[in-house]
This record gives sequence, structure tokens and C-alpha cells, in this order.
Amino acid sequence: MSGEDAPAQQQNAVDQKQETKPAEEPKAEPPKTESAEAAATPAATTEKAPEEETFTYRALVLTGYGGYDKVKLQVKKGKPALKAGEVLVRVKVCGLNFADLMARQGLYDRLPSPPVTPGMECSGVVEAVGEEVTDRKVGDKVMVLNRFGLWQEVAVVPASHTFLIPDGMSFEEAAALPVNYITAYLMLFDFGNLRPNQSVLVHAAAGGVGIAATQLCKTVKDVTVFGTASASKHEAISQGGVTHAIDYRTKDYVEEVRKISPKGLDIILDPLGGSDTHKAYNLLKPMGKLITYGAANMLAGQRKNLIAVAKNWYHQFSIHTLSLIQGNKSVCGFHLGYLDGEMELITEAMNTILDLYKQGKVKPRIDSTWHLEQVGDAMRKMQERNNIGKEILTTEPMPEEEKKEEAKKEDKKEGKKKEDKKKDDKKKDDGKKEEKKDDKKKEEPKKEEKKEEPKKEEEKNEEAKKEEK
Amino acid sequence: MSGEDAPAQQQNAVDQKQETKPAEEPKAEPPKTESAEAAATPAATTEKAPEEETFTYRALVLTGYGGYDKVKLQVKKGKPALKAGEVLVRVKVCGLNFADLMARQGLYDRLPSPPVTPGMECSGVVEAVGEEVTDRKVGDKVMVLNRFGLWQEVAVVPASHTFLIPDGMSFEEAAALPVNYITAYLMLFDFGNLRPNQSVLVHAAAGGVGIAATQLCKTVKDVTVFGTASASKHEAISQGGVTHAIDYRTKDYVEEVRKISPKGLDIILDPLGGSDTHKAYNLLKPMGKLITYGAANMLAGQRKNLIAVAKNWYHQFSIHTLSLIQGNKSVCGFHLGYLDGEMELITEAMNTILDLYKQGKVKPRIDSTWHLEQVGDAMRKMQERNNIGKEILTTEPMPEEEKKEEAKKEDKKEGKKKEDKKKDDKKKDDGKKEEKKDDKKKEEPKKEEKKEEPKKEEEKNEEAKKEEK
Repeated sequence: MSGEDAPAQQQNAVDQKQETKPAEEPKAEPPKTESAEAAATPAATTEKAPEEETFTYRALVLTGYGGYDKVKLQVKKGKPALKAGEVLVRVKVCGLNFADLMARQGLYDRLPSPPVTPGMECSGVVEAVGEEVTDRKVGDKVMVLNRFGLWQEVAVVPASHTFLIPDGMSFEEAAALPVNYITAYLMLFDFGNLRPNQSVLVHAAAGGVGIAATQLCKTVKDVTVFGTASASKHEAISQGGVTHAIDYRTKDYVEEVRKISPKGLDIILDPLGGSDTHKAYNLLKPMGKLITYGAANMLAGQRKNLIAVAKNWYHQFSIHTLSLIQGNKSVCGFHLGYLDGEMELITEAMNTILDLYKQGKVKPRIDSTWHLEQVGDAMRKMQERNNIGKEILTTEPMPEEEKKEEAKKEDKKEGKKKEDKKKDDKKKDDGKKEEKKDDKKKEEPKKEEKKEEPKKEEEKNEEAKKEEK
Repeated sequence: MSGEDAPAQQQNAVDQKQETKPAEEPKAEPPKTESAEAAATPAATTEKAPEEETFTYRALVLTGYGGYDKVKLQVKKGKPALKAGEVLVRVKVCGLNFADLMARQGLYDRLPSPPVTPGMECSGVVEAVGEEVTDRKVGDKVMVLNRFGLWQEVAVVPASHTFLIPDGMSFEEAAALPVNYITAYLMLFDFGNLRPNQSVLVHAAAGGVGIAATQLCKTVKDVTVFGTASASKHEAISQGGVTHAIDYRTKDYVEEVRKISPKGLDIILDPLGGSDTHKAYNLLKPMGKLITYGAANMLAGQRKNLIAVAKNWYHQFSIHTLSLIQGNKSVCGFHLGYLDGEMELITEAMNTILDLYKQGKVKPRIDSTWHLEQVGDAMRKMQERNNIGKEILTTEPMPEEEKKEEAKKEDKKEGKKKEDKKKDDKKKDDGKKEEKKDDKKKEEPKKEEKKEEPKKEEEKNEEAKKEEK
């Protein structure tokens, strides 16, 4: 971790043309020679050779583990080669996920070491197809799911990792759908075996997975959804289908659930880890299923917080079979990032989700759309839990005037950065930022929200405005 | 634990008329006074008062923890009182379960301390109904599921614990069905979420739960069942629906499964515990479910084997959430004995099972039927894994001539007991009897089987003979 904290935008403005090294390619193999490439990409051979040479594209690159500024916008040169079974996608919109935040801090082992392009999902248009690809053609609008490497204008992925975008779905929705909905779907319907009349606890109910899970719960008759979120988000999540919204910042969610459902719950989705997993286990009914899918409690501050990590490890839930037997309980772990070998299973889930979309039963909710240059701010908003729904990045170039506005803000941001650093150092000392019930800290996130307001208003993306409440 | 090892039959022959103390009543409350009883059991008031006083019934009673002889046949006096919501059942047939073996050794905490009547399931006829019982009437043929107390001629249970026996189902089948089929059903379809094309490992595939699970697997399209059993049972389990029979005594079942299904399995039912749970976990596919429902590995010898118990504890499976997340795996614990508060769930499962029975898709397989006097032999056969299917006890009196035959055998048994004791002591030393892959011991069970043959032939129960292969 470097101590240097230059703002991402500033750096990008200064050096947009630096060439990338082959090691920064997100694909598994280094680019082939030009002749080999031409052979591997018949669709591309019809294009002019000079373009091949001058082909450039912008890519976000994680340059090292650390704060929000560690993800930098760079320009890559040379058209990526296509192997058999692969397609080249012109990326329109990328989705942001919690795993990306973990990855930036060096807490997610599915991302190769920096420098590397992060990004697990995107939407775009197929621009070239490799040999042996029969079910995708140039011009297909697709959404893409990959282990990493999708936060760039051009991505090469196996065709099996792409899904056709149905009519009526925007690129924004398509980029917001794969990770959150497949995660929520497999947790609820594969591990959870959700059935009518059951009860489900959804933590972070205003987050991407939370909203997807709530919508999916509502596709089953008479399911009761308990959703945790800060009070300001309660109206939104209630409208989204949450039956009982619980403000985890001011109330003990276990007590609140017990008041309404004394016997406990059928399914608990746990993205928090640590001590919250213990609480979840005790809150299960007989035949109840606890599905843990993250360790958000590990994220405290923008850089890896060793105390938070250690605490999470210390409190990590461990269960003996005898306890499971006597309680008639189930504990499941889920992470889509570790499921990338199971494309058949994922495709099956995706097909069901797309059917539900076509029936109007699920619909991704976009919190806000950001330019690639703004990825740091987007990550910050997500980590500070100020979003309601999905944060997405558009590859559309930032208008010049907006860039100037951003540049002006840099000075202000410099101040903010320093403040952040101070705050982070403080967090390192006490590691308590993410402790939900710590009332003394309740005011802090509100201050953050206010600071973000002006930025939001400067955004020109209509989609984002429509989606925001 | 007493060191005394008098054979159960001998003791019963000597003292069939001993009166039971109120403490030996399996019901939660002591019998009410006669007038209270009369008020509580309107149906019974029409019977003659003298019968009430002279009412006696035979009951098996666990007199202390230990060997097979600790379950003794006694005669109880006085008609049990009925509370509101209860029914009195004239028991015809009782089912034997693994939990009963554990209970006898003091390894099952759902059974009150001795003296107590064991037995979790039976079939019979409703002989009296308490107040507020609307869905059962005198003469109804029922199967019963209860925490304990059903190994006797007369049992008082909540009406909600009874299920009407469908037309065409014998009392024998009805006594063999509840525990095994509800267990297998909830494991496969609630926790397991079994779907077409999946693969399942069924340990002890010739046992009661194993046969039920295999039949239930076959109700789902293209499910592959891996079943472990000793080679002599392979023909039977293959006919019953097992796709790949594995002799766990001569082969490493993990290797055998991997040969056929290199990626592992979707569902593993684990009644063994200890190190076998670890193997099962590693044998799961992504999104796989391990359902552990017992600790049969703890049972070594007829008395509590501290080494086997300690070994099981030492090897007890414990899992961290991080491993579950990275593996996308589920670990569930199940035991019907701890689910007795969930009659709604159980009734729902039972209704589905009875529908499948009516459709001819499931059918309990009876290994052998024993008289109450023979409960020790029945338990021995089950514990030594010599059964294929269910062992049941009939409350029909043993014919006098058969009793004489049994008495003759007692001398022989005395010798056998001593031998058993010697063997048990040996087991205490090495604790290895139940180690499946211990080739040196492979011969022992065969010897046991031969010894049992003559006993089997003496049995007069036609049902048992019909069912036996």
C-alpha cells in the first residue's frame, strides 16, 4: 500500500495516454501476435488493418491495494486478441459490487494481483466473435458476468459468460442485474428453498443484493420480508416489498424480529459476517437456513483495516454438526465469485431471472450512474452505504464542461481526502466505524450524505435521475 | 450402568406381573384419580368400571443405560388417563430406530431418564379420545409419532401426533413409515432441495432411512443415487433404486464416487458423523448440501463405548463460514427427535409421503418382525447392520410354544452374552469395531449373521417372511 493519495481524476487528466503493459491485460494469456490474432478473430479481419494498430480504449486499473484512488483510468492500446469461444464486447455500462470494494483493499482473492482491471459485470454490444462461437453474433446486445476485467471500454470474455439482453431492458439495467440477481436467486431458491408463507431477513435491504432479494421474495406467495436499512431508506425499501423495515442503527434487529416472529425466521441472508452471523444462527427457526455471503463487517474505512479484519476473523462463525442436528438448522455459504466454473447453473438461474423480468416481477433499481473518471466517488458512496440500489459506471466519455467542473472540485476534494485520511487513521485506532449499534457515531454518515448532494446534482445522466427517489 | 447381564426374555418370564410405579409412566403427568379420568375420557365412561381397575398392558421399559437386556418387558396396571386433545391408542406394531439404540446407551437426550418406555413410532387403533379431539374417533387406524413412549400395548398421545393409515396399508408398514420417511423427506426436499439430474449419496442404503431416501430420490427425474452397504445387500438396494452400490467395507467410498462423478455430489446424507462428515463435505459439488443426521459412528458395541464417543467428538465436524463461502456449500443438521414442536411441518411432509404411497411410489420395506420379548435381538440385529429395511415389534402375544423355544435358547444365549461381553470389553480397548475399512474385522459380522439364522427361522410371523428377501 502506497502512502501517496493523489486523486484519481487528476492523475487521469495528466496522463491519459500511458501505455499498458501486457501484465495489465485482464485476460489469462498475453495478447497473441498480430497474425495469430487475425486468424483467431475472423470477424475482425474484415476491418481495416490500420485501425488494429491504432486501436485504443479506456480501462480502469487497480494499481495497488488501498484507498479509492487506487483505481485509475488508463488508456490501453492494441485490439485484444480473441481465442476460440470468446467474444469481444464494446462495454456500455459496468456494475459496481461489494466484492470490488473488498478487492481494492486486497481482501478478495478472486482478483489477480495489481495491476489488474476489476469489474465482474457489464453490458454492451458484441463487436467481434471468436471461432466456435455459434450463439452470439456481432451486434448482439449482451450482459456479461466474469471473474474480473469488465471495467473497461472493451472486454474479451468467453461467449458462455454473456447473456442476451431482452427487449425493453436498458444497458443500465443490464449492467445492474447479473451479480445481484443471480446471487439473490441462488441463495433464496437453491440453498434457501424459499416457499410460500415463509419469513426472510434481508440485511442491507437497500443495497443491490437486498433489493434483488426483496423482489425475488415477493414472487413467492405470502413471504414476509424483514429488511434492515437506515431510517432514511425505509420508505424506499417498503415500497420495494419489505414487509418490516428495521433501522439497524437505532434498534437491535434481533429484538425487532422476535417481536413480530417469536419463533424466528425461515431464511436469513447474511452479508455482514462476524458477530452478525452468530445472531442470525440463533434467530433461525427449526429447519431454518442461514446463508452467509460476505464479510461486509470487514470493510471499515477505505484502506484495509487490520483491526476490523482481525475482529471479523475472531468473531467468525464456526459451527459443530451436533448443534446443527439438535437445532435442525442449515448454514450455507455463497459467493458468485467462487462459482465461475458453474456456468450451466448460472445460466439456468439467469434464464429464470430474465423470465421474471419479462413478466415485470423484477427490475433492477439504479441508485446512480457515474463516469469511469468518477469510480472513486462511486465506490465511496457504496462503501458508506449511501446508495439505494445499484451503482453503475458508464463508459460514455465525460463531457468537457463536466470535466472542468470535476477539476474545480479537486481542490475541495484534496481537503476531503485529508479529512478522510484523518478519519481512516482514527478508524484504525478503534475499528468501530462499522459497528451498527454504536450510537455515538450515528451522526457521521449523515454528514457524508450531505457532502455528496452537490455532486449528485451535477450529474447529467437522466437514467440515474429517473431511478432515484 | 449395572454389570448384571441377565437376558431380557428370562427376566420377563420370571416376573411378568410386577406393578409399575407412576414414575414409569411415559406420559408427562401422573395418572389422575379415577373420577378425573372418567371426566377426561368420555368415550371410556361407557366401559365397565371394573375393567378400569383391572386394566393391564404390557410395556417395554428401559430400566437403565447399557446393553440390549436393559429394555425389559413389564406389565403395567391401570388405564392411562386422557387429557384434552389426547387419544388412547391400542398399539399393534412399533418401529425400531437408531435413536432407540442411542437412547439405550444413554446417548440420546430426548429420552427422559430411565425407567422410561422408549419408542418413537407405532401403528394401532384409537380406543378412546379425549375432549377437544375432533379429527379422530374410536376405531380409527392410525400411525403415531412421538418423542418416546410407544413401545407398549397402550399409548396416550396428542391427537396431532397421529396420522390416519390409508386404505391398503398394513399396520406393519404403518409402523415402519413415520420416522424413516419423514426424516428422508425433510432432508431431501427441505434442506436438500433435490431436483432433476442431481446426485445423492445415501449411507447405510439398506437401512430404514436409506431405503426411504432411495425411494424418494426416485420420485425425481434422473436422480443418481450412490448407496453404501455391505456387498451382501447390493442386490437388494440396487433393486430398490440405488444407481451405484458401493461396498464401504472393502472400498473407499470417496474414491468410488469420484470415479463416477469427478466433480462430486449435490446432496450427501450423513448418518455417521465423525470423520465421515469431513469426507462428505469435501465430496460436495459447488452448491452442494451435506445433511448430517446422526452419529452412528458413536455406536460401538452394545454399551456406551467411551472411546468411540470421544473419537466421534474429537473428529466432530466444525465448519467456518469462510470455507462455506469459498466452497459455495451448505451444511445442515437434522434429527426428527428435536423437531417435535413442529407438527404442522411434519404433518405437511406426512401428507405428501402418504400421497406418494397411494401412488405406489414409496413403500416401507420390512426386514423382520419381532415380539416384544425379542426386542433385545431386534436391537442387536439393527446395531450390527444385519437388516435390510425396517425392524418392527408386534404387540401380538408370543405363542406359548414359541416362548418355550425361546426359553431353550436362553442357555445358548447365556454363552453368547458372555461372548458379547468379552467382545465388548475388547472393543472398549481398541474402539475399532465400527471402523468400516478395517479389513481385519471384516469377518466378524458374518459370523454374527450365521448365529442369527436359526432364530430367524423360528419366527412365525408371516409378514416378516414375505418381506425378507
